[in-house]
Parts: sequence; C-alpha cells; structure tokens
Amino acid sequence: MVKYIESKENNKIKHAASLKESKYRKEYGEFLAEGKKALELALSAKNVKEIFTLKALENIPNDITQYVVKPDLLKKISLTGSPEGIVFVSQIVERKPKRLNKVVYLDHVNDPGNVGTIMRTALAFSYDAIILSEGSCDPYNEKVVSASKGAIFQLPILRAELSEFCKDKTVIVSALNDKAKDLKELETPKSFILVVGNEASGVSKETLESADIVTKIDINNIDSLNVAVAAGILMNHLR
Amino acid sequence: MVKYIESKENNKIKHAASLKESKYRKEYGEFLAEGKKALELALSAKNVKEIFTLKALENIPNDITQYVVKPDLLKKISLTGSPEGIVFVSQIVERKPKRLNKVVYLDHVNDPGNVGTIMRTALAFSYDAIILSEGSCDPYNEKVVSASKGAIFQLPILRAELSEFCKDKTVIVSALNDKAKDLKELETPKSFILVVGNEASGVSKETLESADIVTKIDINNIDSLNVAVAAGILMNHLR
Repeated sequence: MVKYIESKENNKIKHAASLKESKYRKEYGEFLAEGKKALELALSAKNVKEIFTLKALENIPNDITQYVVKPDLLKKISLTGSPEGIVFVSQIVERKPKRLNKVVYLDHVNDPGNVGTIMRTALAFSYDAIILSEGSCDPYNEKVVSASKGAIFQLPILRAELSEFCKDKTVIVSALNDKAKDLKELETPKSFILVVGNEASGVSKETLESADIVTKIDINNIDSLNVAVAAGILMNHLR
Repeated sequence: MVKYIESKENNKIKHAASLKESKYRKEYGEFLAEGKKALELALSAKNVKEIFTLKALENIPNDITQYVVKPDLLKKISLTGSPEGIVFVSQIVERKPKRLNKVVYLDHVNDPGNVGTIMRTALAFSYDAIILSEGSCDPYNEKVVSASKGAIFQLPILRAELSEFCKDKTVIVSALNDKAKDLKELETPKSFILVVGNEASGVSKETLESADIVTKIDINNIDSLNVAVAAGILMNHLR
C-alpha cells in the first residue's frame, strides 16, 4: 500500500523520528534502518513495519505501507540524509540462536561503527550470535544498523553478562598481555566465546580473570589495532 | 612557549580552522590532528608546528608554541570537540619509504574512517607504505587523521597510480571473484603490492587486469566485509 505524507507534524514521521533516541527504541521495540540493501535483507527476514521513501518502490508486499515523502521529511528521520532515499522501521526481535558454539562477546565496546562492523563480520564468518555487555553501545543505534550492512536482520543479538555463558565454553579473551598466546598458535575450540574489549581500555580485569585462553595478534610500532579490525582477524582465524 | 588567544578572529585560529578544508591543507601543506596520543607520536616524528590546548602542556619543546584557548575556540578547530582538549597543526611531509617490499594500495577507498584505520593497521603490521589512488579520500582529512591513531606520523603515505608500481612487484588484488584464490592458500611474496578497492564497487576492472594474484577471504551470508576489516585480515596474512 502506498500513501503520501506532506506534513512534518504527521504522526508517522514523528514516531519514526523518535526512534533516533534509545529510550523510544526501547519503549516501542522498534528501530530505523536505511538503504536498498538493508531493506532487501529486512524483507527477507520479514522484518519491515513501514517504509518511508522518495518514490514508491516495486516488489514490496502489499501489507507493508510505503509512505512517499519529500526529501526534507526524509531527512528528519534519516541518519545519513539517505542517499538512496529509503528509510524504514523494523521491530527489535529477540532472535534465538540455533546454537552457541561460536560466539563473539563485546565487553564495553562503545563506538557504534565498530559494533555494527563486528556484526557484519560475525555474520560473514557464520558466528552463531553476538553478545553485548552492559556498557556496550545500543545495538539498534542507527550508526550500528548502518555499519552492520543488514547483518542486524540476520545475526542473533543478545545482551548479557559474560558469566552467564562461561561455564561450558572456552573463553578466549583478546588482550595485549605479555602472557597472551600468539593467535597464530591457537586452535579453534569446539565451543567458544571470543571476547574483545573497549576501544581505549581493552577488556576489564574481571573478564581477563575468567579467560581460559588469552590471545593477541602480533603487532609492532603502535599500541593497538582498531577493535573491529582485531575482531575481524580473530574471527577469521577462529572459524 | 605559551601564549593565550581569546578572540575568534585571531589569525592563528582562523588559519587552523581553514585546515579543515582540503584546498587549504594543500595550499599550506599542513593538517590538523587531535589528542594526547597523536601529539606524542607527532612530537617523536618532530612534526608539530603549533598546539592549541585548554591548558598548557608539560614536556613540550620550547620552540613549539602552545596557544591556550577557551573551549569554544577549540571547538572551532576540532573535529570531535576534542575531549582531551588538544588540537595541533602538523606539516604534510612526504616521508620517503625505506623500501617498498610490502605495500598496501587503496583503489578509490572513499571513507576517511576506513582509510585512517587501514593506515593504523599497515603500521602495526610493519608495511613499508600506503599508496592512495586518485579518487581515494584525502589522507590528511581530519577523520582519516583521527582514525589513524597517529600512524599518519610514521607511515610513508604516497599518492600514485598502480601502474607506477606494478613492474617489479607481485600485484595481489582482493576481489570477491569466482576465480579468486582463497587467502589461506596464499604465500607471502618477497615483494608485493596488496590492493583493496572501493567500499561499494570493489576494485576497478583495470586494476583487476593488472593483478598477478586475485585473492578473497572466504565469507558466507553477506556480500562483503568492511574494507578496513578485509585489509586487516589480508595484511595479517601477508606479513
């Protein structure tokens, strides 16, 4: 169904714009995403509530309303100014992981670009889920959604503390620690949880204490790698 | 030497603010950087022209002027609002690479965050230089500088076309091509140039034609990895 909206005061626009804020995402259980590719993935996950677009799109199921709007209205609800002219609302779905043998755990990872990029990589390497600690950024933040390139519609996303998952899994913690084992020497355990830490301070002391294996990527000249790059190298090795 | 600036119309402030634009960076051969860590690395590379700070810093060589300013002035020249209260001007230096055996080449990589992150990774893996094609983003853009975490002060950065470097090197191109060889099977050549491509369209046709080896990272479920993550995995393998 295609409808037209012209007023900035329209309730649908106001509602969508409110989803830029974390508290409203929580209240309504919904979030915003943008672009053609993300829309494709969201449609195939049957997770599109409504679409705001500059011109009506083809091949959209009839029970999803497309609101055709002017560029200034789209800007109000878009993060990037939406070069592709498509913003849509999806529901926050608790996707139950089929198994939890290969999991990446984010310990206070703050930057939404990093969190989204790690989601994208985790999906590409067929990880079973991504788990975010309290203190990691909101996974439905628009910047996370954008950087995830649609992975957010496929990858199970959990919020939990590490201790809930430690028991029956090998906990592998990435830390630039003198005693850390070089990643190259690491074999992939049958069931594991890979932990990466905060951009500035790394993993917490407690996390380090619950590690079965501490590992590091051998680097020179500089203190550390970007956390999304490090996570990518780790996940590529630990398949 | 410590001086104080209070006026927004001060020429030093105006000059520094102008460096947010590419054309003035080119005209003056200077760029802006921020933060304590970057300052340390810039100082050790002897590449700090002047510093703008909320309060005078210790251990700064006396021939470098520190301008102490109010937060609103610092904001004018800062990208991030400078949480650490330090912005400084450095010179664009053509650092001659000692050798060119291990080089990463960016073919139309546009996103400044990605370019800066690749610099950081290239330095961490002791690459000899990073080369940017025409059409890749300005390496002295503030967002590149920020994401490079100081690597910009140590890594030789060149602007050139791939053809200038092809002759005596193995050209390894990363592309999600059916004929591409799995990265895992690749041995590191003695002298090589690793090419990664544009975020949306990958490497150009021409680039693909000049490849000695085309390689890809084995992924599932999703079209591609983030280019900085892919470059990280490739550089970690090709050491």
